[in-house]
Amino acid sequence: MPAGRGRLYGLGVGPGDPELLTLKALRLLREVQVIAYPAPEHGDSFARAIVASWIEGHQQEIAIRFPMRPGPPPVSIYDGAAAALAAELDRGRSVALLCQGDPFFYGSFINIFARLAGRYRIEIVAGVSSLTACAAAAGLPLVWRDETLSVIPATLDKDQIAARLTAADVAVIVKLGRHIEKIRRLLDRIGLLDSAIYVEHATLPTQRVAPLACINPDDAPYFSMALVHCRRATGLQRG
Amino acid sequence: MPAGRGRLYGLGVGPGDPELLTLKALRLLREVQVIAYPAPEHGDSFARAIVASWIEGHQQEIAIRFPMRPGPPPVSIYDGAAAALAAELDRGRSVALLCQGDPFFYGSFINIFARLAGRYRIEIVAGVSSLTACAAAAGLPLVWRDETLSVIPATLDKDQIAARLTAADVAVIVKLGRHIEKIRRLLDRIGLLDSAIYVEHATLPTQRVAPLACINPDDAPYFSMALVHCRRATGLQRG
Repeated sequence: MPAGRGRLYGLGVGPGDPELLTLKALRLLREVQVIAYPAPEHGDSFARAIVASWIEGHQQEIAIRFPMRPGPPPVSIYDGAAAALAAELDRGRSVALLCQGDPFFYGSFINIFARLAGRYRIEIVAGVSSLTACAAAAGLPLVWRDETLSVIPATLDKDQIAARLTAADVAVIVKLGRHIEKIRRLLDRIGLLDSAIYVEHATLPTQRVAPLACINPDDAPYFSMALVHCRRATGLQRG
Repeated sequence: MPAGRGRLYGLGVGPGDPELLTLKALRLLREVQVIAYPAPEHGDSFARAIVASWIEGHQQEIAIRFPMRPGPPPVSIYDGAAAALAAELDRGRSVALLCQGDPFFYGSFINIFARLAGRYRIEIVAGVSSLTACAAAAGLPLVWRDETLSVIPATLDKDQIAARLTAADVAVIVKLGRHIEKIRRLLDRIGLLDSAIYVEHATLPTQRVAPLACINPDDAPYFSMALVHCRRATGLQRG
């Protein structure tokens, strides 16, 4: 790897509460020369908003803007973003790419990582993921003892989801959003709807925790989740 | 819940690097009147060691000591610890129970939570879990796109583990320790040993990342893990 190139940090900034930033992420946020983040086509970046109070304003910023339509974003967005970051790294500048939650847990950062890994020095700074933030918000232990955990995107087709749910002790269904009705019907059919807790905006002032059965499906944001205790006995046993 | 009682915090302190503490955990660590933590029968607590540089020494400390033998600790340890913490909470004192990683991700904290929830105010402060810390250490994206993730304790019997591995896209086998030979034989039999990356002491100076096939089984600590990409194509595709 050529000397003189800058380092890229995949910086996990946690699930939303600015206080769930790590000390390491805060230090690097202040040290780097360029701060990059995903953002909608128009308007503010959620990842940037999490750390906004610690950005002092003298660093260059690069917004990676995504079109607001369902489905995977066009490949050209990631190609363009990777090229823009590479240009900064080639100039010897350090770059932090902000990632909501953890960079390697369903992060769009992975698309940039796939384009630049091997060619540039990249360091991943793990963050508090939505997975454990949701369990904390719900006051429900995620996994203990010999329990297995399955994390299942709601975007899969219903037979794949059903197969994974029936094999799991504890399941977390991620990316609920517009798939909420499909997931509810499925959970109802296999007798698990009453065990499903819905969580949105975990750790933010707008946090909501409720039985999945009671949620208005039109309201669910893309990053909402459901925790499903498929096999855990009612309550936690002492022991 | 009676007024005047103190609050219990389940305080995630992250996987090991003191810089992976969150700002919230640091604030609470300084604010509470009592700091409690798991510890071996003799010697220092790992959870306390992570935050040792921020403990100022004027707070009461409670070490919850566990016997150093395999298998689940005696119920009396948790009963005694819960009673000791409850006595402090009854006196109106705030208590932080330090938890390596995240309190609700296989944390022994859950045993205390199960005894005190409902009777005391308990707040869970999510931390960076070993799950994403290991992926960051290995430089391997944990899950992206529509991939499912299975987290499987190595303590299960081998048929249960095999069934879960064959259904997973990505698997993380936790609590490897003395089960490493069993897991290797199993992965070899189902053709996944070459896809398994071993990680121990993620984020610590003693961090080790290596192919699972190359590890001396006598060396693996209890909290080591293996990342197994069961179905991911070689490398990440661009897209």
